[in-house]
Amino acid sequence: MKKLINHLDHVLAESLDGLAAAHQDILTLGARHQFVRRRVPTPGKVALVSGGGSGHEPLHAGFVGRGMLDAACPGQIFTSPTPDQMLAAAEAVNGGAGILFIVKNYSGDMMNFRMAAEMLDLPNATVLVNDDVAVEDSTHTTGRRGVAGTLVVEKMVGAAAEQGADLTACKALADAVNRSTASMGVALSSCTVPAVGRPTFQLGHDEIEMGVGIHGEPGRRRIPHASADAIAAELCGAILKDLEPGRGQRVLLLVNGFGGTPLHELYLMVNSARRILNAAGLDVVRHLTGNYVTSLEMAGCSITVTTLDDEFLALWDAPVHTAALRW
Amino acid sequence: MKKLINHLDHVLAESLDGLAAAHQDILTLGARHQFVRRRVPTPGKVALVSGGGSGHEPLHAGFVGRGMLDAACPGQIFTSPTPDQMLAAAEAVNGGAGILFIVKNYSGDMMNFRMAAEMLDLPNATVLVNDDVAVEDSTHTTGRRGVAGTLVVEKMVGAAAEQGADLTACKALADAVNRSTASMGVALSSCTVPAVGRPTFQLGHDEIEMGVGIHGEPGRRRIPHASADAIAAELCGAILKDLEPGRGQRVLLLVNGFGGTPLHELYLMVNSARRILNAAGLDVVRHLTGNYVTSLEMAGCSITVTTLDDEFLALWDAPVHTAALRW
Repeated sequence: MKKLINHLDHVLAESLDGLAAAHQDILTLGARHQFVRRRVPTPGKVALVSGGGSGHEPLHAGFVGRGMLDAACPGQIFTSPTPDQMLAAAEAVNGGAGILFIVKNYSGDMMNFRMAAEMLDLPNATVLVNDDVAVEDSTHTTGRRGVAGTLVVEKMVGAAAEQGADLTACKALADAVNRSTASMGVALSSCTVPAVGRPTFQLGHDEIEMGVGIHGEPGRRRIPHASADAIAAELCGAILKDLEPGRGQRVLLLVNGFGGTPLHELYLMVNSARRILNAAGLDVVRHLTGNYVTSLEMAGCSITVTTLDDEFLALWDAPVHTAALRW
Repeated sequence: MKKLINHLDHVLAESLDGLAAAHQDILTLGARHQFVRRRVPTPGKVALVSGGGSGHEPLHAGFVGRGMLDAACPGQIFTSPTPDQMLAAAEAVNGGAGILFIVKNYSGDMMNFRMAAEMLDLPNATVLVNDDVAVEDSTHTTGRRGVAGTLVVEKMVGAAAEQGADLTACKALADAVNRSTASMGVALSSCTVPAVGRPTFQLGHDEIEMGVGIHGEPGRRRIPHASADAIAAELCGAILKDLEPGRGQRVLLLVNGFGGTPLHELYLMVNSARRILNAAGLDVVRHLTGNYVTSLEMAGCSITVTTLDDEFLALWDAPVHTAALRW
């Protein structure tokens, strides 16, 4: 295992220190690296708090800032943060209008965020993101997994909260965005958790994992390496089967790299996916392409489609100022 | 070799089609994928044209847009674009104030850009970027290589051109930014050029290449895998020896991933590099962290330092709107 680290025990803390130093204008750290929060909290606003295991950077800490999250709680790599992290974060960013927890559907995260919600002495609600259409139930999950679509929920609800939506409206919007969003991924290689020191799973020389999870969980099936067009067809096919969008529907297309795939391959996948979505009568009016919800250095990508109405489109286009998304 | 591609002959064209589709608001393609240019040219402005082999995305096409490049000419992967591409690009973005070619110092790029400059019937100048302090002369280079510092030159000169600097001033500024910028990289793994199908070089199980080039060219030495702090110390040491900044000097720190290294490791390197630069009396006032000048899926990173005066700082902070950099 070759990684740019010093000591296994300090990977997370040193990485967060680097993030905070590099983005001092946007964010700051809680005590003992419990959370990353906006430098300047916004009174009177619903506070959006997310979090989850590390190793998916820039998710979530890279999405803390104006127009998106108020705080993110980083767990150890591929490990849920603890309820006390979530409590501390919620209290630090409380603007008096309530707390919305945004949680990817993994059993550990679910349990800890639920515990935090019960202990929190502030109005709060929780949205569960479960956009991954690959499999029902998985290694760490009951029901569908939450993957790259989480970014879309965080962006749109972040914009709404910034514009003054109350807790009930933010929660309803988050659920609606989640229902309008579907994702599926493919792995071309495994990844190695630093503390484990060996690849999470093994793929044959010419094998790929269709429907892989963002921790390397098994997907639908393992197949011989296929063309970008064939991969895009399977991913988009599963997504469209789930979303059942009508012809002429406007959509956002997020082609998300898992960390180890060159950007030019991701743009090639954009090209393949667009052809398929266009052929299905969809109008791809917004794009996001890059490494946003990663699995350490895994090679591969996921495709996420969100159906857009005027409200979603305006929320997507609203200004955002975070370490990883800015417009 | 597992890559998200369809056919070896179409990798570049399909990837550029995806890029252009995803960023229709910013850029458009020249005929036969010869170049990527801004959708809306700016009359009366010096036009900045760069280019080079593909495989380093988002460099250069991802930096086409307001406040940065006017056009980029993509060669095949790790292969120089041709003079006719450069001529076509220059003519397409000519705003009547001359053309500045921004060229990384590789023999093939140098020769082709020189040929284009001689054939071009427009006022033009060329800046040669050679920020890599690792080695003098290399596999594809006489003199020092041009690497991630190219981004800094493109950003600062792009801002100046946008503000109305003339060709002579842009050329002088570009040379000044290049002289104020130094970089060095490390590889933890090799990369595989699609058309070749096997890794460009071989590293042992526990070996790293200090001073690697962005095509996998040999660096200074091959050493056993070292800590992030030790790697940062060697990279920063070489950079500081070259720049010889005074105590209290303000600097920009760019920690650039080569494509296969997780973002949290890059931020950990930021933390290591900051400690070293601070100990040398420098004031790190600006940061950029991420995969910007890549080597396909190579694991590793480079560190770039640019010394900043008030002018450079203002040019760095000036608005930019490209696919890969936006503020």
